[in-house]
Amino acid sequence: MSKQKSKSPEPKLASAPENQKIILEIISYNAEQYSRNSDLSIDALLKELKPDRVNWINVDCLHDQALLEKLQAHFNLHSLLVDDILNDQRPKAEEYDDYLFFTLKMLYRIEGHSIDYEQCSFVLGNNYLISFQEKEGDMFDPFRERIRLDQGKVRKKKADYLLYRLVDIIVDNYYTVLDNIGEKIEDIEDEIQRTPSNKTFQKIQAIKKELIYLRKAVYPLRDALSRVIKDEFGFIEEENIRFFSDIYDHVVHLIDSLETYKDLTSSLMDIHINTMNTRMNEVMKVLTVISTIFMPLTFIVGVYGMNFRYMPELEWHWGYFTVLGFMLLIVIGMIRYFKYKKWF
Amino acid sequence: MSKQKSKSPEPKLASAPENQKIILEIISYNAEQYSRNSDLSIDALLKELKPDRVNWINVDCLHDQALLEKLQAHFNLHSLLVDDILNDQRPKAEEYDDYLFFTLKMLYRIEGHSIDYEQCSFVLGNNYLISFQEKEGDMFDPFRERIRLDQGKVRKKKADYLLYRLVDIIVDNYYTVLDNIGEKIEDIEDEIQRTPSNKTFQKIQAIKKELIYLRKAVYPLRDALSRVIKDEFGFIEEENIRFFSDIYDHVVHLIDSLETYKDLTSSLMDIHINTMNTRMNEVMKVLTVISTIFMPLTFIVGVYGMNFRYMPELEWHWGYFTVLGFMLLIVIGMIRYFKYKKWF
Amino acid sequence: MSKQKSKSPEPKLASAPENQKIILEIISYNAEQYSRNSDLSIDALLKELKPDRVNWINVDCLHDQALLEKLQAHFNLHSLLVDDILNDQRPKAEEYDDYLFFTLKMLYRIEGHSIDYEQCSFVLGNNYLISFQEKEGDMFDPFRERIRLDQGKVRKKKADYLLYRLVDIIVDNYYTVLDNIGEKIEDIEDEIQRTPSNKTFQKIQAIKKELIYLRKAVYPLRDALSRVIKDEFGFIEEENIRFFSDIYDHVVHLIDSLETYKDLTSSLMDIHINTMNTRMNEVMKVLTVISTIFMPLTFIVGVYGMNFRYMPELEWHWGYFTVLGFMLLIVIGMIRYFKYKKWF
Amino acid sequence: MSKQKSKSPEPKLASAPENQKIILEIISYNAEQYSRNSDLSIDALLKELKPDRVNWINVDCLHDQALLEKLQAHFNLHSLLVDDILNDQRPKAEEYDDYLFFTLKMLYRIEGHSIDYEQCSFVLGNNYLISFQEKEGDMFDPFRERIRLDQGKVRKKKADYLLYRLVDIIVDNYYTVLDNIGEKIEDIEDEIQRTPSNKTFQKIQAIKKELIYLRKAVYPLRDALSRVIKDEFGFIEEENIRFFSDIYDHVVHLIDSLETYKDLTSSLMDIHINTMNTRMNEVMKVLTVISTIFMPLTFIVGVYGMNFRYMPELEWHWGYFTVLGFMLLIVIGMIRYFKYKKWF
Amino acid sequence: MSKQKSKSPEPKLASAPENQKIILEIISYNAEQYSRNSDLSIDALLKELKPDRVNWINVDCLHDQALLEKLQAHFNLHSLLVDDILNDQRPKAEEYDDYLFFTLKMLYRIEGHSIDYEQCSFVLGNNYLISFQEKEGDMFDPFRERIRLDQGKVRKKKADYLLYRLVDIIVDNYYTVLDNIGEKIEDIEDEIQRTPSNKTFQKIQAIKKELIYLRKAVYPLRDALSRVIKDEFGFIEEENIRFFSDIYDHVVHLIDSLETYKDLTSSLMDIHINTMNTRMNEVMKVLTVISTIFMPLTFIVGVYGMNFRYMPELEWHWGYFTVLGFMLLIVIGMIRYFKYKKWF
Repeated sequence: MSKQKSKSPEPKLASAPENQKIILEIISYNAEQYSRNSDLSIDALLKELKPDRVNWINVDCLHDQALLEKLQAHFNLHSLLVDDILNDQRPKAEEYDDYLFFTLKMLYRIEGHSIDYEQCSFVLGNNYLISFQEKEGDMFDPFRERIRLDQGKVRKKKADYLLYRLVDIIVDNYYTVLDNIGEKIEDIEDEIQRTPSNKTFQKIQAIKKELIYLRKAVYPLRDALSRVIKDEFGFIEEENIRFFSDIYDHVVHLIDSLETYKDLTSSLMDIHINTMNTRMNEVMKVLTVISTIFMPLTFIVGVYGMNFRYMPELEWHWGYFTVLGFMLLIVIGMIRYFKYKKWF
Repeated sequence: MSKQKSKSPEPKLASAPENQKIILEIISYNAEQYSRNSDLSIDALLKELKPDRVNWINVDCLHDQALLEKLQAHFNLHSLLVDDILNDQRPKAEEYDDYLFFTLKMLYRIEGHSIDYEQCSFVLGNNYLISFQEKEGDMFDPFRERIRLDQGKVRKKKADYLLYRLVDIIVDNYYTVLDNIGEKIEDIEDEIQRTPSNKTFQKIQAIKKELIYLRKAVYPLRDALSRVIKDEFGFIEEENIRFFSDIYDHVVHLIDSLETYKDLTSSLMDIHINTMNTRMNEVMKVLTVISTIFMPLTFIVGVYGMNFRYMPELEWHWGYFTVLGFMLLIVIGMIRYFKYKKWF
Repeated sequence: MSKQKSKSPEPKLASAPENQKIILEIISYNAEQYSRNSDLSIDALLKELKPDRVNWINVDCLHDQALLEKLQAHFNLHSLLVDDILNDQRPKAEEYDDYLFFTLKMLYRIEGHSIDYEQCSFVLGNNYLISFQEKEGDMFDPFRERIRLDQGKVRKKKADYLLYRLVDIIVDNYYTVLDNIGEKIEDIEDEIQRTPSNKTFQKIQAIKKELIYLRKAVYPLRDALSRVIKDEFGFIEEENIRFFSDIYDHVVHLIDSLETYKDLTSSLMDIHINTMNTRMNEVMKVLTVISTIFMPLTFIVGVYGMNFRYMPELEWHWGYFTVLGFMLLIVIGMIRYFKYKKWF
Repeated sequence: MSKQKSKSPEPKLASAPENQKIILEIISYNAEQYSRNSDLSIDALLKELKPDRVNWINVDCLHDQALLEKLQAHFNLHSLLVDDILNDQRPKAEEYDDYLFFTLKMLYRIEGHSIDYEQCSFVLGNNYLISFQEKEGDMFDPFRERIRLDQGKVRKKKADYLLYRLVDIIVDNYYTVLDNIGEKIEDIEDEIQRTPSNKTFQKIQAIKKELIYLRKAVYPLRDALSRVIKDEFGFIEEENIRFFSDIYDHVVHLIDSLETYKDLTSSLMDIHINTMNTRMNEVMKVLTVISTIFMPLTFIVGVYGMNFRYMPELEWHWGYFTVLGFMLLIVIGMIRYFKYKKWF
Repeated sequence: MSKQKSKSPEPKLASAPENQKIILEIISYNAEQYSRNSDLSIDALLKELKPDRVNWINVDCLHDQALLEKLQAHFNLHSLLVDDILNDQRPKAEEYDDYLFFTLKMLYRIEGHSIDYEQCSFVLGNNYLISFQEKEGDMFDPFRERIRLDQGKVRKKKADYLLYRLVDIIVDNYYTVLDNIGEKIEDIEDEIQRTPSNKTFQKIQAIKKELIYLRKAVYPLRDALSRVIKDEFGFIEEENIRFFSDIYDHVVHLIDSLETYKDLTSSLMDIHINTMNTRMNEVMKVLTVISTIFMPLTFIVGVYGMNFRYMPELEWHWGYFTVLGFMLLIVIGMIRYFKYKKWF
């Protein structure tokens, strides 16, 4: 049942190099105690689980089939759930008998590059939280330090609050990405008025594409969170529901901003197209003005370039200058006409 | 958890200069009594609270961390709520155990400029209402005077009616802003028929952008109000629900108008594009008419400018005039043809 | 709380001249009795109310503050309701304790002009119906006559049936307006194929604008009627619900037609744009054909207009005619090429 | 209350000529018995009703006011229902106390013409079904024969099954119409690639228009059927609900196809516009290539057509051929440049 | 009631040649036993049904009326259900008294061709599953092998799990098709930037068309699955609901991807149109630059080609070179002007 979902034009989930080591880490804490163990074997790790503490198991890089199977066996994870962890999923929350499963996308904006997506899954049990990341990341590091130093409320709370904090950190990062897009849109807005070009158009298209992918990550997240908030299975404590509610509000706010950015981007497209058309119009006007002035003149000088034996004007002493003057009058007339037509 | 949400291309929330004084004010009233105290320290203010009156605390400029913490402690405000007050939020209503939280956007249209947004939050408790504004404003001043003079029903009512009146004042101001946009649309409609230009296009785009931001402020407000109206927690008295219902109707009316303006703006875009195309067509017609008339003529005079030794026409006495006449016939023919084709 | 909602580009609600007299009229009837009194003072009118009859009070032109206050006092009208009568509202139905409030837009299509909107409000009480119109109208006159002559069922029914008949008359008038638009669309359809012009485009835009405003009047009416049909407060007799249901069906039918007309109008726009482009193409083809034929010819005659001492062709006796013949061949070749390319 | 809904640009409901005879027919049957009487007077017909059989009364052409009144009186038809039969209605189902009212559109595609719409209404009572058609049709004739010959289940079933069969016949006919449109779309698809023209565009527009009207007929039918399926009033036997459910599925399938055709048609529009633009581009390229080649050449020969006394080149013996050669080089250079730019 | 739904422009359901043999196969299994019989007659097959096993009957090619009637009689299949199997249906699930009916589309992408659709229907009874395919396929073959070898859980489960596995195999295949489209979109994205052409446009249109048909297959599948999940009739065991839930999630994921691809395709269209316009602009610029430079020059040399008796410049010794120099100055000026206008 291993689905090979490459879905090519979409941003690749940042996949870890095959040879990268799987990183296993367990942080156990309660109000009084704290321990952190990294680089354990899976068997050693499972022995570290303390029933009276919150046990946060973090798994980076998901290549070790054996490890996953042991986790699956120990925590009684459903086979569909393991499939969901390993494969590209839309963000969702699912209640099982013994745990809540939550999966969403982490976003990284590597400067000058496009957005990187990483799937991040959580299994929230009674006194444990397992987090699965696709590659080793440091987004949670400052928060690990906060736990160690017992800052904030986290040490006084259960595993559900830990889940809230981790999801909140991920969603906060969405704002960074969105702000970055916002700044880009503003830059293009400035640029498009001054020096529109094909490059501007490509930038707009790039932003449109990023917004399309962002929507795919953020819209289902709203549904997933609303499912957590309803929480028919009681994995989240009553008083902590409000925290997830708060993330929900942030996600709705993000969606509003995505829609706003989408509208702004389509406005930018309108401006680009209008600029293109205005330029075309100007080019055509120059061509028409030049043609309209010089075609009649060229005709006139052509007339007096004819070799008829009998052409009285040619004999006149002032004929040449009369014709020059006449052509000058035509030019002046034309220019006035174009001014009147507001072509300049 | 302090989110730095700059979201650049969006209208900046009007942020107060850092050195601006926080303004604290308390108005306490009931049907018989009225007192107003400004520029108190937060501790002095909290002593002014009268349990048998409606206490309206107004906080302008939100920089003083200490002040907020004291308010938070005294009224038992939730930490998420304080976050929501300090950061850019979508309009929403949220019930807590002891109070109702309501946040929305105030709109200012500074003449000749675009719309200014200010976040305004309310905490409605049993006998108090706390209002948080980002900068010192005078939108509520006339109403403060009405309270003092005991005009209208406000002195006979509870804090929930006070909330209604303040929200109503803010929403009424939306109409002013929308009317202003309406007038602009009408101006552009006149202008676009007479003298369309790139400037007109930019004006249309500016209005489109304002409508995009207005939607972001008004749509969630409808949901927030519908939540207040349902009022499952009883912060609003039964008989006052109808007043919030009335604001709800106004907001729906505003949304209708926003949609109408959006449609009108997109009609304006169609007109603009059509005008551009019509002009392009006209320019092309002038070019084609001129070319079609003068190219054959220039060819003909070119023929008789050739230097062949034996060209019988050149010797004819009336050759020159015959050719001139012939060319005149061509011109007349062409003009008739273009008239027939309705190119003039 | 008097909102000045001018909303400029929208069709002005037909406002009565200030000096126009307010017209007060009361019609009281039951199966046996009928009386009609016009031009009463408000105090006299209120004495005319008969508890055992249906009392229909009609108020035209809403400038007399005193009159409204007396009505408000006598019928215990809510202050928000009076606001709603006086200000531009979206169509809605609202239940109060003692009466049902219903407001909608009357439509007039003044021939050759655009649509005129007038707000019409109803207060349906136990044995009375008050109708508020903004200016004196005669839309209800034929129906008043029917009441007097005891035609139809109206004299046997209560005030709720009277409300049904009046709303039905107003909604029926929507059909007239819509038919008028339908005919216009058909006219434009004919015209656009034969003689498209900028005027046609303006007509399409005018219809689009009218449809935008009609939507604003008709869509909320559906919601208002569905609220009346649910009728949780029992202002409408069970057996009369079906009549309001029938109006509801008509309004839904109107909405279908509006959507159809919207689609047809956007089709017309497509046709217009296509016609413009086709013409542009044709103009360009003429230009290109002319240029392609005459530019080479003009070049050739230019060659033989050069003054080189040694140009052997010039000396040939048949040189001139050879060149003419050669040019003729070129023209024939070109025309064949264009025929082949289907440019004619 | 007779609404004159002409709604001009819409397809006229196929209206019968005024002088056409109203056709009344009654078919009474049960499992054992069968009788069919045509051209009865209405009074005679009403006597033919057999309480122990299913009585199918068919009324073609609805001009005889007296006839309708007698039917109305006999079956206790609601006045609103008679209005609905006589006037253009959106498809709907409505329950009355004694009968179910169902109205929908019949579709005819007359070859080479556009679609003809006819309104068809049904009144389903306890042991009778009245069908109202606007003109005499033969769509039901094969089915009448099946009843007579006792084919299928119809003779064993009640009037509700008869209604199902008739509606099924009408909806089946929609498929024929839709297939016809499908074939047309395929034809245009072929044509547009080979010989696009203004005629193709008009065909696309014609299909778009037909789809607009079809939507108006099919979408409300879904709602009407879903109302029948819910059947809160028990006019349909439990076991026959599934049959109406089946028609419902067909209508949803039709709606899917309509949407698909709409998308395909808008794709055709894109292709048409693209073809137009490609052609324009080609025309412009020809013009530009010709101009770019011949303008410099014409200039050069113009130079040597000047009459300056002292122009050394003119005296050279090979001057003429040098110039011709030089011009040939220019032409070759140009052509290479255009080849490089991929203009050919 | 046999509907001939050809619906021409849609992808034909891959119809089997008439002479192809109907293939009947029965696989009966439980945890311990397994038997497979092919090419049985229908009567023989029905005898093979084992009440204590899961009986999977597979019917390929649906031409044998007699066979279907026997199946219908034996399993008591509803006549509407048989119609649905034989005719093109939108994916749906329907509960009958004794079985669940499920129909969906199988997708094949034949390399280099467009997508092939095949309708696949399932009847899930108590201990049997009948699958109907339109032509002999091998999509299920690897899975048949898995059953035989008793791999996975299928032998331990009931018929509902078998249905899940088959539907899962079909839906998994959708991913392959979608990935293929994804790759195509990526190819076009590369191509459109480098060498856009009319062919690229046709490729985009082809993808758009495939997406239109895919939507028609996938969207109703979501509804059908949600109906199975609700499962009010208990055909699916409680613990297996989660598996269908998983397919549902996949289908929603597919729909997300379809929407994403639709947006990407419309972006490609924008890019194509922009490229076309940019090229047009460039062509026009070349034309205008050439005309603007050479028209004045041609005029000037025309002036000195006139044959006036008295033209002083012609007599000057350096007249010719002065004019050549003057023209050179004009050319330089023009080029500077165009550089300034950024036309190069």
